[in-house]
Amino acid sequence: METNLVTEGNVTTPHGFIAGAAYAGIKTYAQNKMDVGILLSEKECISAGIYTTNKFVSPSVELTSNNVKNGKVKGVFVSSGIANAGVGTQGMIDAKESLEHAAAHVEVDPIELAIGTTGVIGVELPMALIRSGIPNIEMSPEGGDAFARAIMTTDRVPKSAAVQFKLNEDAITIGGCTKGSGMIHPNMATMLAFLTTDAAVEESLLKYALKNACDDTFNMVTIDGDTSTNDMVLILANGAASKKPITSGTPEADVFCEALKELCDYLSYQLVKDAEGSSKVFSVSIEGARSVEEARLAARSIAGSTLVKSAIHGNDPNWGRVVAAAGYSGAELDVSKVSFSINDITIMEAGTPIPFHRDSVIAIMSRERVNLTLKLGLGSGSATAWGCELTEEYVRFNSAYTT
Amino acid sequence: METNLVTEGNVTTPHGFIAGAAYAGIKTYAQNKMDVGILLSEKECISAGIYTTNKFVSPSVELTSNNVKNGKVKGVFVSSGIANAGVGTQGMIDAKESLEHAAAHVEVDPIELAIGTTGVIGVELPMALIRSGIPNIEMSPEGGDAFARAIMTTDRVPKSAAVQFKLNEDAITIGGCTKGSGMIHPNMATMLAFLTTDAAVEESLLKYALKNACDDTFNMVTIDGDTSTNDMVLILANGAASKKPITSGTPEADVFCEALKELCDYLSYQLVKDAEGSSKVFSVSIEGARSVEEARLAARSIAGSTLVKSAIHGNDPNWGRVVAAAGYSGAELDVSKVSFSINDITIMEAGTPIPFHRDSVIAIMSRERVNLTLKLGLGSGSATAWGCELTEEYVRFNSAYTT
Repeated sequence: METNLVTEGNVTTPHGFIAGAAYAGIKTYAQNKMDVGILLSEKECISAGIYTTNKFVSPSVELTSNNVKNGKVKGVFVSSGIANAGVGTQGMIDAKESLEHAAAHVEVDPIELAIGTTGVIGVELPMALIRSGIPNIEMSPEGGDAFARAIMTTDRVPKSAAVQFKLNEDAITIGGCTKGSGMIHPNMATMLAFLTTDAAVEESLLKYALKNACDDTFNMVTIDGDTSTNDMVLILANGAASKKPITSGTPEADVFCEALKELCDYLSYQLVKDAEGSSKVFSVSIEGARSVEEARLAARSIAGSTLVKSAIHGNDPNWGRVVAAAGYSGAELDVSKVSFSINDITIMEAGTPIPFHRDSVIAIMSRERVNLTLKLGLGSGSATAWGCELTEEYVRFNSAYTT
Repeated sequence: METNLVTEGNVTTPHGFIAGAAYAGIKTYAQNKMDVGILLSEKECISAGIYTTNKFVSPSVELTSNNVKNGKVKGVFVSSGIANAGVGTQGMIDAKESLEHAAAHVEVDPIELAIGTTGVIGVELPMALIRSGIPNIEMSPEGGDAFARAIMTTDRVPKSAAVQFKLNEDAITIGGCTKGSGMIHPNMATMLAFLTTDAAVEESLLKYALKNACDDTFNMVTIDGDTSTNDMVLILANGAASKKPITSGTPEADVFCEALKELCDYLSYQLVKDAEGSSKVFSVSIEGARSVEEARLAARSIAGSTLVKSAIHGNDPNWGRVVAAAGYSGAELDVSKVSFSINDITIMEAGTPIPFHRDSVIAIMSRERVNLTLKLGLGSGSATAWGCELTEEYVRFNSAYTT
């Protein structure tokens, strides 16, 4: 398969999608002021979503999940600055009213829109601002970048991309944007991702493709299924570039799944790279676990360890913390079979530390990107997770988020 | 029951225990230099232990567990500065040799001693230092404080206490010391606790009493059973003050269990109070969970949340983070029934935030001790966990632990 990753692409790069954003006045604290946005397909869509598993859930997630189930969703309204979570019964009232205004503005039915909100929990949405802000959203095929900015909270940069490939005679594009991971443990950050494609995709395949892509990408920068109140990943497929729908079990389905995963992989890497107070990303690759599931458990446990993240920040080759984090992850482990390397320097072999040249390892760890590889020697399960360093800046920032 | 908590008490406060410590030269980095120590009962003991569940385990834990199973343990050898974990087959060889030297010094058999080690992982024990250091340990009934210092690593203060009570005509003492929680998440710190009593206690009761006490105390400053390579809690009962053994199902058994829990509660509070880089302790009380187990899950999840800990540090009444951490804990949650208060100020009632006077809450959160109470309204399960703030100092410290 030949796929082309277009880093300057976004959610309106696929045919038949328009978007726009405006400043309603909610996100007073951010440098980037866009805080309401709409993404819309000009044609009907097949849609699929993955939502937070947190029991404390925003009405935005409930409403989106219901609308996606109804099968009519062809667009999304987003607002940033306030999460619309934990505000009692007012939350659903405001979510519905927001959708009504957005739907009226783009002349669709409210059940044709999903809704994503992100920001501070426990504060009611300023509906007066939202009501007056929505009419200022100008929709256009060039609106993808503005839409990506309208979901940012503490993100430093907008995160969009697209991937393009040929499928028989069709030139297909998948576009996407994400916001994240303001947090060290993304489990508490609101992670939003919106994906669009001009392929026509059978509904069951679209659901499968989304889950398949997320398991190896967005879910690997998240800790153990721990998710925030507002997390969602949504995909809309409008078929504008397809002559016939892609169906499960065909070579075309495989190509589509791989391309979607490639895009999600790129976006989730951007997400972890842009984490609050962090300038250093590290990957944790597990090889030789008993199963893929155990490999994922171990990889996420290490990537999420406060002590490992601190060691990455300090360029400290403290491999004991890495092996210990694997040891409590739930994955089977036999220390006498474990090998560990940092970038390509072997630190531990068959459970015994190798004397390494400390200064070389510190030098390698000082780079912007660090790769930790742990071989468990028990089976063929492998997985990769992404983490970011823990910095003093993170603590300062998160000590005073609402005050 | 009348129990008397003796904060200046320690492991040699109960009758018939002696202890001592010396500086062997391992712990060069610490202000407190004691790094080898021995605790010994003059009489035979009943012993019980609780050990780490980490799959990456130190030979010290294996050896102690075996010796306790053999039923002859009447003392402990400890060394600090190096954990003796992750050093391949050399680890068990060194652990056994350490015990041989310690046993010879106090004229017992090596299988009569447990062994506890703590410190950096992945470095071999400097056996030459240990061999030459052990003979300098002077054993005495006043050695409890020195022993408590010999298990310290990054702890700022030694942590010992005793509890005394009458049982029929017997004046019983339980003593203890602990080291900790060098970490924000104690799951990665080595947590050692040694408990002694001059009560005579039936073995099955001693095991039950230890588990019962730990579940509500030491395990509530630990996250989800995640434990380090070297964690252990050990209790020795020598019967020096008892006319007859305490047996299960008697009123005396209840008194003993409660007294042991009181001591462990005090020691585990000292442990969290002395966490690295932290000057502020907070408690998380869950009420109205469906079960005690779910209450513990929710309490530990909140106490262990990086975002909650950051908010405590910044005196930020960000209750959304608290409810969200409960929401992903695994405990059942219905947000519309949740109430939340900080110290005695109600912040959320039946799922709806109460407008509170922000400055008052910030003022209350500025105190050294903060109490978070979350009422779930689903049942009668309750539990309390302890956490400490996340500070910039913690990150600085843990960025450069081994370098």
